Amino acid sequence: MTSSAASELPGIGEVRAAAVRLAGRIVATPLIESPLLNARLGLRLLVKAETLQRTGSFKFRGAMNALLQLDEGQRRAGVVAFSSGNHAQGVAAAAQLLGIPAIIVMPADAPAIKVANTRGYGAEVVLYDRWRESREAIGARIATERGASLVPPFDDARVIAGQGTAGLEIAAQAKALGASLDALVVPVSGGGLVTGCALALAAESPATKVYTAEPEAADDWRRSLASGHRLANDPAARSICDALLAPMPGEITFALGQRLLAGGFAVSDAEVLQAIAVAFADLKLVVEPGGAAALAVVLAGKIDARSKTVAVIASGGNVDRNVFARALAEA
Amino acid sequence: MTSSAASELPGIGEVRAAAVRLAGRIVATPLIESPLLNARLGLRLLVKAETLQRTGSFKFRGAMNALLQLDEGQRRAGVVAFSSGNHAQGVAAAAQLLGIPAIIVMPADAPAIKVANTRGYGAEVVLYDRWRESREAIGARIATERGASLVPPFDDARVIAGQGTAGLEIAAQAKALGASLDALVVPVSGGGLVTGCALALAAESPATKVYTAEPEAADDWRRSLASGHRLANDPAARSICDALLAPMPGEITFALGQRLLAGGFAVSDAEVLQAIAVAFADLKLVVEPGGAAALAVVLAGKIDARSKTVAVIASGGNVDRNVFARALAEA
Repeated sequence: MTSSAASELPGIGEVRAAAVRLAGRIVATPLIESPLLNARLGLRLLVKAETLQRTGSFKFRGAMNALLQLDEGQRRAGVVAFSSGNHAQGVAAAAQLLGIPAIIVMPADAPAIKVANTRGYGAEVVLYDRWRESREAIGARIATERGASLVPPFDDARVIAGQGTAGLEIAAQAKALGASLDALVVPVSGGGLVTGCALALAAESPATKVYTAEPEAADDWRRSLASGHRLANDPAARSICDALLAPMPGEITFALGQRLLAGGFAVSDAEVLQAIAVAFADLKLVVEPGGAAALAVVLAGKIDARSKTVAVIASGGNVDRNVFARALAEA
Repeated sequence: MTSSAASELPGIGEVRAAAVRLAGRIVATPLIESPLLNARLGLRLLVKAETLQRTGSFKFRGAMNALLQLDEGQRRAGVVAFSSGNHAQGVAAAAQLLGIPAIIVMPADAPAIKVANTRGYGAEVVLYDRWRESREAIGARIATERGASLVPPFDDARVIAGQGTAGLEIAAQAKALGASLDALVVPVSGGGLVTGCALALAAESPATKVYTAEPEAADDWRRSLASGHRLANDPAARSICDALLAPMPGEITFALGQRLLAGGFAVSDAEVLQAIAVAFADLKLVVEPGGAAALAVVLAGKIDARSKTVAVIASGGNVDRNVFARALAEA
């Protein structure tokens, strides 16, 4: 970890400040449960429905928290982000609400619907050839040429603090339900959501252990947490969890994760499809594959949670209808 | 309308009392919107996600509000309800939470999953032959024999007031979003939800017009409101909206509806399937056919809402996976 990253480690103060900043701008998503599902599993399972967050994923929280901290000049110059997925929509939607110009760098072969949605939020989309060009380089060049601010997807104190507001809500909602959380399991890619939430729970519910959930084919967090070093995924790794394929843990997020996380779990694509079907039938939630990874950890019995109270985050719902239909048919 | 019904008409006081009684016992379901969908429709659409209420529909509110008003002796003697659908689950789940014995009278040919779910909430299920026996008579006999209290599905002041708490939440949530509601559209069967919400909005947002939504094949409310008399549906009427097939408006609910409702709209099964698909793609909600009727009214342009702000209730999510897959495939 570089010293510059260390100096940027956010704390609970930044998460609390984000919650104040975001109040009224984000959906206070519910923490729901199914008595029937609880009885089947022999535990109490609370599900944070971030699928209902603006743009269909938690990413809006961190993006909005970052944008709200730009000064007037920075707002006029605009923001730039590279993403083909939920971060792109989070940044574009937050920028639109604040009247900030946004440029999103997306691969030219991204699904047309994702490009259209990002443009639908008023963003300018710059397409690149993912085989011959570097999105980081294009993003940096745009940032330099236009004076635009880069909004990183996870390795950024403002973004981590914004995602952590979901953790503050979970702690308060669990308390209101009379539930004492033994564990929280969170889908992980770069690590902004899980480490932000871990900051929140360390302060608000210190007895709660926080774990990562990711695909077996891209289990960099599980291995990195076990080894104490940031380890990369096989670049050829494939999983149905398209939102969970960051190459390796971030510098800032891993520094936080080493201190705050209890460990990691990995699930198969089949277990993820099963979790999507359970979320449909028992919780009435539309969850995308990556968003269902933490639920899959509990349903597949990867975590020993019998008679315990466990919360999971359903982190996103941007799933193609064919994938969803496949989950319903196979499960 | 009988005088006994007139004397039982609930008012805003009962709805407010229900909100106090239910606080912490119900899910405060979110009121969500999609900026992309709003842009496509040329209006602002706010969707109350009662699909996420306990048992997957709004019915839990009214059932819990009724049960909480039973005295100790009544609680010990238990409750009885007849329903093959969402009301059964609402009563069973509320009774279980309060430790009250519940008997649910269901048709012997009800789907096995619905019988299993109702038993899963701890209720005793009494099956009857829907072609040869009267569920009302069976329910009344059980109530007499065991001294159990009948919990009606809609024509009951306690039930209406409980459902109306959704309307209080909508008014407060719309205000927090800076939205001034021009209209609220609510799926209607017996009328408990729509009239309870109309009571709430008449007090909290008096400029909001409240409308019913129902299937074209069972448009008793639209016709009854237009004629000023309670009119029945054709008993042979069929619709994909299995939750919206009550034979005619209730006495109490129609008395309230005449005073408080602005009119009714009806939608086709195809329009309902389309609404289920939009709820999936744009709102990440699992909505059952009857629960999607109000959304369908807006999407199909049945109500002239251009440039206006309209709320709809997505009232339930208990949909068979085959029906849901059909909606995704056809839309």
